[in-house]
Amino acid sequence: MASPVQSPATPDTVVLHTPQESEIAEIVSELVVANHILFCRGVVDGFGHVSARHPLDPGKFLLARNMAPGQVAAADILEFDLDGAPLNASGRPVYLERFIHSEIYKARPDAMAVVHSHSHSIVPLSISKTARLRAVFHMAGFIGEEAPVFEIRDAGGPATDLLISNAELGGALARCCGGHNIVLMRGHGSTVIADSLQLAVFRAVYAELNARYQCEAASLGEVVYLSKEEGEAAVRSVEKQSERAWNLWKEEAARMSPR
Amino acid sequence: MASPVQSPATPDTVVLHTPQESEIAEIVSELVVANHILFCRGVVDGFGHVSARHPLDPGKFLLARNMAPGQVAAADILEFDLDGAPLNASGRPVYLERFIHSEIYKARPDAMAVVHSHSHSIVPLSISKTARLRAVFHMAGFIGEEAPVFEIRDAGGPATDLLISNAELGGALARCCGGHNIVLMRGHGSTVIADSLQLAVFRAVYAELNARYQCEAASLGEVVYLSKEEGEAAVRSVEKQSERAWNLWKEEAARMSPR
Amino acid sequence: MASPVQSPATPDTVVLHTPQESEIAEIVSELVVANHILFCRGVVDGFGHVSARHPLDPGKFLLARNMAPGQVAAADILEFDLDGAPLNASGRPVYLERFIHSEIYKARPDAMAVVHSHSHSIVPLSISKTARLRAVFHMAGFIGEEAPVFEIRDAGGPATDLLISNAELGGALARCCGGHNIVLMRGHGSTVIADSLQLAVFRAVYAELNARYQCEAASLGEVVYLSKEEGEAAVRSVEKQSERAWNLWKEEAARMSPR
Amino acid sequence: MASPVQSPATPDTVVLHTPQESEIAEIVSELVVANHILFCRGVVDGFGHVSARHPLDPGKFLLARNMAPGQVAAADILEFDLDGAPLNASGRPVYLERFIHSEIYKARPDAMAVVHSHSHSIVPLSISKTARLRAVFHMAGFIGEEAPVFEIRDAGGPATDLLISNAELGGALARCCGGHNIVLMRGHGSTVIADSLQLAVFRAVYAELNARYQCEAASLGEVVYLSKEEGEAAVRSVEKQSERAWNLWKEEAARMSPR
Repeated sequence: MASPVQSPATPDTVVLHTPQESEIAEIVSELVVANHILFCRGVVDGFGHVSARHPLDPGKFLLARNMAPGQVAAADILEFDLDGAPLNASGRPVYLERFIHSEIYKARPDAMAVVHSHSHSIVPLSISKTARLRAVFHMAGFIGEEAPVFEIRDAGGPATDLLISNAELGGALARCCGGHNIVLMRGHGSTVIADSLQLAVFRAVYAELNARYQCEAASLGEVVYLSKEEGEAAVRSVEKQSERAWNLWKEEAARMSPR
Repeated sequence: MASPVQSPATPDTVVLHTPQESEIAEIVSELVVANHILFCRGVVDGFGHVSARHPLDPGKFLLARNMAPGQVAAADILEFDLDGAPLNASGRPVYLERFIHSEIYKARPDAMAVVHSHSHSIVPLSISKTARLRAVFHMAGFIGEEAPVFEIRDAGGPATDLLISNAELGGALARCCGGHNIVLMRGHGSTVIADSLQLAVFRAVYAELNARYQCEAASLGEVVYLSKEEGEAAVRSVEKQSERAWNLWKEEAARMSPR
Repeated sequence: MASPVQSPATPDTVVLHTPQESEIAEIVSELVVANHILFCRGVVDGFGHVSARHPLDPGKFLLARNMAPGQVAAADILEFDLDGAPLNASGRPVYLERFIHSEIYKARPDAMAVVHSHSHSIVPLSISKTARLRAVFHMAGFIGEEAPVFEIRDAGGPATDLLISNAELGGALARCCGGHNIVLMRGHGSTVIADSLQLAVFRAVYAELNARYQCEAASLGEVVYLSKEEGEAAVRSVEKQSERAWNLWKEEAARMSPR
Repeated sequence: MASPVQSPATPDTVVLHTPQESEIAEIVSELVVANHILFCRGVVDGFGHVSARHPLDPGKFLLARNMAPGQVAAADILEFDLDGAPLNASGRPVYLERFIHSEIYKARPDAMAVVHSHSHSIVPLSISKTARLRAVFHMAGFIGEEAPVFEIRDAGGPATDLLISNAELGGALARCCGGHNIVLMRGHGSTVIADSLQLAVFRAVYAELNARYQCEAASLGEVVYLSKEEGEAAVRSVEKQSERAWNLWKEEAARMSPR
């Protein structure tokens, strides 16, 4: 393969990229945008992270170095293997919780992108002894009938720091998640999975809204949830439209983002 | 009819409009503003839509092509007939849920504008088994004593995607709405009707606030609602003032809007 | 009296003001700022209004013409008498509810400024059958042990539009308010009184926050309110500091305001 | 000691600082940023304050003169002794509640920075008769199993203005706080302590979020709190990352701050 293509560049320079290089550059660029969108939309603050599986090697994934998502630039995106080891960090610090990503990519061949966050309406549902996150509106059918909650005490004992800071805990989280597309983490936040980066961002945004609406409705009395079939049908219809949201949010992020 | 009038244009060009063309251009321009206001006010996000009945042909209506409301420009406004068929889309994708608009214009000759949205305080009331949206303050008298809730399972069975994606479902929604000016849609959002575009936007904004205040008050105990007569009197007084809000929001949208 | 003073003006013009004219110009300018602050702080939206008693004639007050507070400029400020009649409107439309202001200035010689608004946490408390607004934190001691709620049905019957659209209803509101510095209005909002414009704005902002905190705390169980003595002591200490907030908000409003 | 170092200055001037002067300049600069961050993050409004212990003399601390935190500049930072007396105010007004800071620095040799605020979700928990602030998520482990609440009636009687306006009340607050890193103040707000300025800001931000999440979760039913061991472990892991948040917030504050 690989007839080189010319990238947009200044008139005096000719930069040649192979198609493979272009494909990587594109996903890196999209990952930078995803970081900024999640920040602008309030899904992440100084903490939280988003990754994408490597487009050419399913045994690797792309994730920023240890930094605030809203400040990530292309040069900050690193490659990791599925054991969570950084491959080109050159000593730069990496996220403690990269094992969330590595273990989900290992356990779920369909996962192409992962968002981990502590968004405002998700944390309360992660610490409720009684309520469970469930799909209540058509934009969040992917949540399904009940999102699993990962209780880290089951895997890490009664005195952890609640972080997924090694492969063993990451594996336990991935097992708790199973075939679901979102898993809540008690006293911590959630992790969302999708088969594309745009869709993972979309799901992270609407998971937060679903949680907000569900809590508000619960304060009024009994709630009607989406049935399993409704949720599945809504996913098929609504998620085809996720690019509409992506384009809007990308434009917002470009105006609001620090860089 | 039709002595042509000269539009503001660059000095070198003279563009002649018939009065009819001017009237259409004006409503198109207002519809663009309505899209931006609803986005800036948080009534719509990447999703939701607003339409206006055609000023010259009550058998047609104007609605943007399939895109985020905050990004709509005049060139994106299309004409549809009352079966929801696009008349000048030239192949551009259209909203799946245009049948909300077409069937309401069909069933309600008084409807001149329609807003469909999933605003934050409306969704919770759409999924409560016990609480119903009711007018609680003078700005939202149009809600009346109890807004109907459209349960799509009644019309579409237990496994729909919750979208009003055909004329049959649109017709069922319009029948559920009846003579009301707002209908909630379970697990989805609401649709608001008015006899002008400015008023439809006004009502969509204040329906959201009414829902918010009602939920907050309900958490404190029993609530005093507007009586039928109070709601009607408030509509007569308050809605005459809707242009004041429109002018403010238009100015805000011009500053905040991407375009 | 009246050695004229020179105002800042362009080099070519010399504008002479009497001290009286300067005093009026200053309160007009402050009233414009008050309008913008209340809008920027979210106390008013397109609706709501703020007035000041005339600095030279206690039988008159200053209030904008009928328009959104965020858009008010000095030329929009009109004079009214204590019957609510505009004195220099030159036919420009005036607020329907100017009688809120006129009747409070009539009934309360200590009132130098009045804010009427529908802020987000006040409306829910105005419609609760059980909860009453009470001071819960030191910034809002002026609320006292229980704010009165004006039920317009008592004065205007069961079918009003909830607006204070004549002197009779304004008088009933003023009587309900009595010696309090805030009165809630059922299904509508509140009216706040102070002996200066800066303090009226300060109280309107902190009444909203007090309502918000009180509702949130009520959802957790029983609440400790400020005692009468605590509230009075807090007013004496805290309200001396209101200029600190005014200066901050004025700066914010100058940056955020449309004009 | 003290080989002088050259500060960044205009080309024509050479400003020589001793290392001690540089150290003070740095903490003053950081304190200005801390003021702006707390304002931009909504932890303080026109009121609230943040201080740092003097880097060279543990018997002194640095705190702005009496003004809104969002408007503080380097020239506004004053020195105080541990009795709360200003050392270089030159007559400028100082905060009434400086005794919060002086008494905590006196009682807690480990305290290097103190934030006092009335943030939105903390006040409700300060006035609840039943609920107590407890750590519910990993970012706020420092809160521990139950934050103490200072009831000023115990120290100052039934008719205070709720302010910590003298050393006696400050001492009572410090005793109530004891070895905790946060103490709530009934009907008022909270005071947060840390061993660095960056960490004090971090804790003030996440105390607010913890309170918000805890209240939301409580409305759903019973809540899982962090165990003592989990909280301690989370502090050890998470607070090492506080600079990541600081850098982000500093950048935000630089863009949003009035100065």
